Amino acid sequence: MKDQRIPFSRLQEVLSSILIQNQFFPDRAALSARLFAQSSLDGVPSHGLNRFLHYLSYIKKGLIQPNAVPERIGQFGSLERWNGRLGPGNINAHLAMKKAIQLAKKSGMGVVAMQNTNHWMRAGNYGWQAVDEACIGICFTNTKPNMPAYGGSEAKLGNNPLVIAIPRKNGSIVLDMAMSQFAYGKMAIFEKQGQNMPYDAGFDQRGDLTKSPKEIIENELAMPIGLWKGAGLSLMLDMLAAILSGGQATHEVGESGEEYGLSQVFVALEPSKLGLEEWMDTKAEQVIEDLKQSKTFDNNKKVRYPGEQTLRVRQENLELGVPVDVDIWNQIVKILE
Amino acid sequence: MKDQRIPFSRLQEVLSSILIQNQFFPDRAALSARLFAQSSLDGVPSHGLNRFLHYLSYIKKGLIQPNAVPERIGQFGSLERWNGRLGPGNINAHLAMKKAIQLAKKSGMGVVAMQNTNHWMRAGNYGWQAVDEACIGICFTNTKPNMPAYGGSEAKLGNNPLVIAIPRKNGSIVLDMAMSQFAYGKMAIFEKQGQNMPYDAGFDQRGDLTKSPKEIIENELAMPIGLWKGAGLSLMLDMLAAILSGGQATHEVGESGEEYGLSQVFVALEPSKLGLEEWMDTKAEQVIEDLKQSKTFDNNKKVRYPGEQTLRVRQENLELGVPVDVDIWNQIVKILE
Repeated sequence: MKDQRIPFSRLQEVLSSILIQNQFFPDRAALSARLFAQSSLDGVPSHGLNRFLHYLSYIKKGLIQPNAVPERIGQFGSLERWNGRLGPGNINAHLAMKKAIQLAKKSGMGVVAMQNTNHWMRAGNYGWQAVDEACIGICFTNTKPNMPAYGGSEAKLGNNPLVIAIPRKNGSIVLDMAMSQFAYGKMAIFEKQGQNMPYDAGFDQRGDLTKSPKEIIENELAMPIGLWKGAGLSLMLDMLAAILSGGQATHEVGESGEEYGLSQVFVALEPSKLGLEEWMDTKAEQVIEDLKQSKTFDNNKKVRYPGEQTLRVRQENLELGVPVDVDIWNQIVKILE
Repeated sequence: MKDQRIPFSRLQEVLSSILIQNQFFPDRAALSARLFAQSSLDGVPSHGLNRFLHYLSYIKKGLIQPNAVPERIGQFGSLERWNGRLGPGNINAHLAMKKAIQLAKKSGMGVVAMQNTNHWMRAGNYGWQAVDEACIGICFTNTKPNMPAYGGSEAKLGNNPLVIAIPRKNGSIVLDMAMSQFAYGKMAIFEKQGQNMPYDAGFDQRGDLTKSPKEIIENELAMPIGLWKGAGLSLMLDMLAAILSGGQATHEVGESGEEYGLSQVFVALEPSKLGLEEWMDTKAEQVIEDLKQSKTFDNNKKVRYPGEQTLRVRQENLELGVPVDVDIWNQIVKILE
């Protein structure tokens, strides 16, 4: 896995061209390509370039409909329900957060629940989308079953990523977390390197906690954060997403063996509409200032807030080029030849 | 710590009488007493009877104002901002969730953010309050600093309890979780019994994970669920509560050394207004049915959903009497003599 740096614009062009080859209308190809490239740009290649070939395979299988446009199927107050019509998950999620932001700019708050959509790739993108519009953004998705319930010996819960994003002039705070302690992708990398995870990461076949990625991956027994707590939170997020969107719950997503037809919720809050614009920035500033003063166990390290590295990494990668896995990049470029 | 069972009505009467002695108006005394008694009734004495003497001490110190009535200080769309005026936290929280439910019954969704309020005791009460009105309920509070940030060697974050409650005819699902793996109260009980916690519970003085409650309690180094993840979620909940309510953040709550003047958020969703009433119950039923079919490591045990035990425990305690810690109960009864 050697890295190479590719200009951000080139990354977008290549991905966009491939999507156009795969029947995407040009504006949709450009948006989906930008969202993939943005993930790699921000330092999250696992849900950027490294996921692109998997995305293509879902398009080829017909599980992702390149040009399906979401349809609003219900509305009450500042809550809307949409059918994603199995369109590309990142395009759908971008649209859903955009609608939530529009609602918030009108009424202070907007909630968009979307059924029948697809994997949104990097969750954090939609948090950044909200803060870039000076809104608070909250969103979550369900997934196929990939974690056990507490005490359970089979995957029943999704790792159901959750994003909470708060805008701040000196750097927004963007939490992007799944409910499993570690992503399977991360565990697979450790396994390949013959290493254990740094903390308990899942369960072995007897139900004991283990740091060994192999057994965890084989049995899909990733540990929910906080054991019964993260398991409970995962269950609630799944139920909220399926109920509010009128869509599938995790156990239904899992039925086909493929991960499609997900349920997601997008919330935006517009602080200026709520009379909170200055207050929000002041408060965010104070909280982060206090946090950064925390004493640490390692005197050379300061504690970090969620998303703190992103702007620096983004800037660096814009200047020097986006790091890509050479093998994956070569496979992708080859598609165009 | 011997247990004794006391009729639920007697428990309420005694607590209510003591609150009246402490200048509470009778209806307020009755409500606060009911919320304390309800916690013990539902099997959560740590935030019921066992916390009552601490509550009295805060009233005596003037940190809780028995008859302060919250005031609405802002409103936009279905979001309201309230000043809790340092009234009793459980009465204030009950009022705030009631207002959120009223907003939801009118507009499908209601959000009430409350500043300047006090410890709400058992978080789950307000989730049960929402589901008893057939609403989805979500609420969270900040606290004084009692957990470290990831890598931090001092308490900077609150354990910030979060409740998500979904109504269901065959038993509502009510998640009530703080962001620390274990409550300090629970760790204190293990310490008293000379026992280690069953899982990693916090950090020792070198920053290593430990199951030993003593060191954790001494240094206020409880482990956030999922380490950096729960730490991040705690930070975001604190910021959301302080920003939306216009109130204090965790680091300000901690400044005085006492825990008062908190910020909280209450959300209610009314499914029938959203056209979701039947769908919600069907979906909730399906999810729970699938979950309960999970294979388990211990064949004699089934996995449980959040809040599953509550109705059974409540019924049992209504019939047989509410278990109380004899020492605490005797101290409380003595106040009236």
